[in-house]
Amino acid sequence: MSKQCRTVFYLSDGTGITAETLGRALLTQFEGIVWEIVNVPFLDNIEKARKVSIQIEQAAQNDGYRPVVFSTLLNPEILAVIKQLECRVFDFFETFICSIEEELNQPFARMTGRSHGLQHHLSYFKRIAAINYVLAHDDGVNPKHFADADIVLIGVSRSGKTPTCLYLGLQYGIAAANYPLTPDDMNVSQLPQVLEKVKNKLFGLTLDASQLHSIRSERRPDSLYASLEQCQKEIRWQETLFHAFNIPYLDTSSISIEEISATILNRRGLKRQLYG
Amino acid sequence: MSKQCRTVFYLSDGTGITAETLGRALLTQFEGIVWEIVNVPFLDNIEKARKVSIQIEQAAQNDGYRPVVFSTLLNPEILAVIKQLECRVFDFFETFICSIEEELNQPFARMTGRSHGLQHHLSYFKRIAAINYVLAHDDGVNPKHFADADIVLIGVSRSGKTPTCLYLGLQYGIAAANYPLTPDDMNVSQLPQVLEKVKNKLFGLTLDASQLHSIRSERRPDSLYASLEQCQKEIRWQETLFHAFNIPYLDTSSISIEEISATILNRRGLKRQLYG
Repeated sequence: MSKQCRTVFYLSDGTGITAETLGRALLTQFEGIVWEIVNVPFLDNIEKARKVSIQIEQAAQNDGYRPVVFSTLLNPEILAVIKQLECRVFDFFETFICSIEEELNQPFARMTGRSHGLQHHLSYFKRIAAINYVLAHDDGVNPKHFADADIVLIGVSRSGKTPTCLYLGLQYGIAAANYPLTPDDMNVSQLPQVLEKVKNKLFGLTLDASQLHSIRSERRPDSLYASLEQCQKEIRWQETLFHAFNIPYLDTSSISIEEISATILNRRGLKRQLYG
Repeated sequence: MSKQCRTVFYLSDGTGITAETLGRALLTQFEGIVWEIVNVPFLDNIEKARKVSIQIEQAAQNDGYRPVVFSTLLNPEILAVIKQLECRVFDFFETFICSIEEELNQPFARMTGRSHGLQHHLSYFKRIAAINYVLAHDDGVNPKHFADADIVLIGVSRSGKTPTCLYLGLQYGIAAANYPLTPDDMNVSQLPQVLEKVKNKLFGLTLDASQLHSIRSERRPDSLYASLEQCQKEIRWQETLFHAFNIPYLDTSSISIEEISATILNRRGLKRQLYG
């Protein structure tokens, strides 16, 4: 049996990030459907709404199913245009806002771009400062400033430290440094000296040796560095180190950057607030 | 009149990103309330639910208002525990899932970690490759590989190129390079040669000269580089360049990284799909 092909539209007056995040959370709970995704951000006038209407009607015809539309549209006129079409509309504000108005005992502001716009210059600068911190303290650079870090990730080469630090900086404004554990350190049964001073900020990343082997092989095929044996040795060694020094760590083999980041913040008790 | 202080809880079996995205989109529509934010990710057993219950009851007492709870909990037993408490629960799945089941004509999978977990190894590797591409092509490095870019951002120093490229890579898997326009280029009325070859991938970032002045002053106070006059000169020059060569560009003075990124993808017609 061939898979069902359907189209989902994410409509928004702003970036469309909220609409897509929420829609995806719902649709990933259903299997066997191949979704064609259409993002329409900044949908802020009737002319644009007419263009989208044509796309929606077209998709309904092509798919043989009415499209699913997730909306965070705040303009009731635009929403009304979309609702007349051959599609199923789930509007996030319409669904929740009345109950929240009631709970908070005030009417809502109906302001576009609130969730992913530039609200507070102070927190915006904090975010940019965090990104700059991450970039300036990647891969063991400038360890003398590790004292300013919120967290210092450690792990062997290609264990996922850099993407995680970038994500922590961008999405949470966390000053995340990282330090690579290298084979040079392996003979010693103590922490590299620069890490001793920030022991309470350390968090280890580990993964399956075979997965590390395949990641490293993409980078340097057939090298000693990428060999399964070397990967096994390094992973065994770093996990022993984490245990010996009571460093919390996480096996990242089958989890995403989002899950790694959420886990680190949670286990290290760091206050988190999403920017993105 | 002092501001209302209330507590919001984001409860999730997974990362909590969906719950926080939903709650924030709604709460930012209301003014005059100071929110204490409590994130509880990976809330996956009754023991943890009991701990959270105590926090919720405590917040209700301290605030004098019942807490607002946004939930993406998939475990009905845990949700039931929370619902007994002195709080107002908005559960995302409960609200939408029946209508979506009906529309798609199938029951939902009730699987934790679907929206921010590791679903497809292929798209995950594409994401990591994009992040590596961004890091290897920041600030004009390796321009000979610009042909492999999805987009090449250009602008004067501190115009926001790097954070935007990182965001595009991390959140959308876009291979984003960037190239700084420097005063050295200013005497010439043509594009730097490395950019000529990728003209159809260029996108300019500009901003208020006074804002550039204050950003640069943080970095190098009282320098020629940071002087208002120099900033004005560079901004005038780059905008002339963008016009002369028909390069689409955006004034980023009062918009967020999310808005810049969504606008670039939209105007350059790049297919977008959120990872984060």
